Amino acid sequence: MTAKPPKNINIVPFVSVDNMMKLVLGVGVETFLRELADYIEADFRRWDLFDKTPRIASHSAEGVIELMPTSDGEVYGFKYVNGHPKNFREGLQTVTGFGVLSRVDNGYPVLLSEMTILTALRTAATSALAAKYLAPRGAGCMAIIGNGAQSEFQAMAFKALLGITKLRLYDIDPAAIEKCVRNLAGKGFEIVRCDSAETAVEGAQIITTVTADKQYATILTDNMVGSGIHINAVGGDCPGKTELHKDILLRSDIFVEYPPQTRVEGEIQQLPGDHPVTELWTVIAGEAVGRRDAGQTTLFDSVGFAIEDFSALRYVRDKVASTTFFDRLDMIADPNDPRDLFGMVLRADKAA
Amino acid sequence: MTAKPPKNINIVPFVSVDNMMKLVLGVGVETFLRELADYIEADFRRWDLFDKTPRIASHSAEGVIELMPTSDGEVYGFKYVNGHPKNFREGLQTVTGFGVLSRVDNGYPVLLSEMTILTALRTAATSALAAKYLAPRGAGCMAIIGNGAQSEFQAMAFKALLGITKLRLYDIDPAAIEKCVRNLAGKGFEIVRCDSAETAVEGAQIITTVTADKQYATILTDNMVGSGIHINAVGGDCPGKTELHKDILLRSDIFVEYPPQTRVEGEIQQLPGDHPVTELWTVIAGEAVGRRDAGQTTLFDSVGFAIEDFSALRYVRDKVASTTFFDRLDMIADPNDPRDLFGMVLRADKAA
Repeated sequence: MTAKPPKNINIVPFVSVDNMMKLVLGVGVETFLRELADYIEADFRRWDLFDKTPRIASHSAEGVIELMPTSDGEVYGFKYVNGHPKNFREGLQTVTGFGVLSRVDNGYPVLLSEMTILTALRTAATSALAAKYLAPRGAGCMAIIGNGAQSEFQAMAFKALLGITKLRLYDIDPAAIEKCVRNLAGKGFEIVRCDSAETAVEGAQIITTVTADKQYATILTDNMVGSGIHINAVGGDCPGKTELHKDILLRSDIFVEYPPQTRVEGEIQQLPGDHPVTELWTVIAGEAVGRRDAGQTTLFDSVGFAIEDFSALRYVRDKVASTTFFDRLDMIADPNDPRDLFGMVLRADKAA
Repeated sequence: MTAKPPKNINIVPFVSVDNMMKLVLGVGVETFLRELADYIEADFRRWDLFDKTPRIASHSAEGVIELMPTSDGEVYGFKYVNGHPKNFREGLQTVTGFGVLSRVDNGYPVLLSEMTILTALRTAATSALAAKYLAPRGAGCMAIIGNGAQSEFQAMAFKALLGITKLRLYDIDPAAIEKCVRNLAGKGFEIVRCDSAETAVEGAQIITTVTADKQYATILTDNMVGSGIHINAVGGDCPGKTELHKDILLRSDIFVEYPPQTRVEGEIQQLPGDHPVTELWTVIAGEAVGRRDAGQTTLFDSVGFAIEDFSALRYVRDKVASTTFFDRLDMIADPNDPRDLFGMVLRADKAA
């Protein structure tokens, strides 16, 4: 009466933290970021296909837990992610996550993966992808203001995709700068440690802001940003958390992932709800212009969107398949007769 | 500078399908259902505490994939669940799922569990809990119309919570009836196989409808339901899927889990949006009356709500802790210095 189900459909491949690290190193960090950016770029080109909904957030006094689902009609994916700025003071990650891909046609999961490391990689890959379309031609030097957990990923992605090899680093905590310098040693960068944000931006064609405080901050003021600069604003990514002075926004051409989400979470929460922005995907798909001229100030107001996580999970699924970097989880109940779930439970006694 | 993080916070306990079956059998099916109902009852009593949102559904031509999040302010939980009626014909489960509990204060997951079996258990426990407040006094006989995957769980829950031992079974497929009879053998039931829904309801004080077709069906018509009956309507649980004739709804007192969700997914999708219903939690909390008199027809329009899954995950977390029925997943990246995520990845080479 029933067709034979696919074999082992009840077993879900799981990429642990340890296996994700081995996968990234096995592929090579720069290759991983380049290939991941290709997957994101491909999905941005078919943006219209996706189910899009702003993330579903559960806010508390100390942070937020979010679910970010999307689907391209064949594959469904979601990410679980938290954001707890105070975690840092307790020796915990501010942002952790995991994600799942499933088949739309039968609802069965096909991948469970850690996404703390993967989110850091996809955030950096998306920033570099945006800069590929928005940064001034021939940019070779980037300032990174905020040298926390995301900073080295940004540096590696900009090197992998744009060939950026000169970095100017600044953090309010000198130890963070040293950590960043140490981690990037031998990776082909020429690094200058700076003692202020003002110094860091000198001579940089790209400014990446990636600080961590959950508060309205002003990491960059208007006078610090010369014309022709591309700003990659990564740290302002939830309500109440911004990094740029409003005047910078007002004279920049602003590019965003998904306006309904960015207007709530991004730098542009400081602007009226109808302030003109360009959706990044339209630039990638050739429907809108990115950088027009050398004097233009461009701003990528990054908050992180579900489709990027979807692309990242797709990439990991494809990449991990030919490796041993995954475990097999017995996650989905699979009785021989689908109506006999109770019988399967009863028989577990005998199987044991 | 940073406090010492809790030990092994990066490791998430995982209850596989195999371990869930062992846990259920180890505890005993009836005890499990009774204790699970206690957890659900406790959470329904503190209903106001919970973050409530209708499930977030991603619909496709062949089914739906849903995320059902909730939080009590201390613990956050969500369930991933699919519903694909056509899966049955392919030898797959119509409904599968898994769930996660996390700490609200830091966002770290504390449990990942299979929820295909657990959802079947919580659905049955919720039905029996509702019947404890709504079924006529001294009810001893239940009709179960639809003898698929959920039917035995319903039977066991009604025995465990209400002492129901007489069952009248009907399914359009005689093989399903036989499967149900076989699985319930030796469990203390007196079972009558019936050849129609009309026959099945004769002499039953409780009628459980739990059929599976995704379409407007009429399993029960008005003339089949005598006065004083409690109807436990389980199968109508998504848009376009109902089991009862509208006339039965019009003369029943209707109890629901969460009106905004039930009006879309439950039997009452057939009624105007302002038709009066009583929220089950208000009955459990003593704020509303359940059954008033022996002649009243009561109807629990079950669709399944996130809080029940939350209760079920809480119960499993508490219950599994003292057993060996879980695995440890390396799911959350946990560098010694939370800012040194990239360094942790680089060092994985040396650790390997």
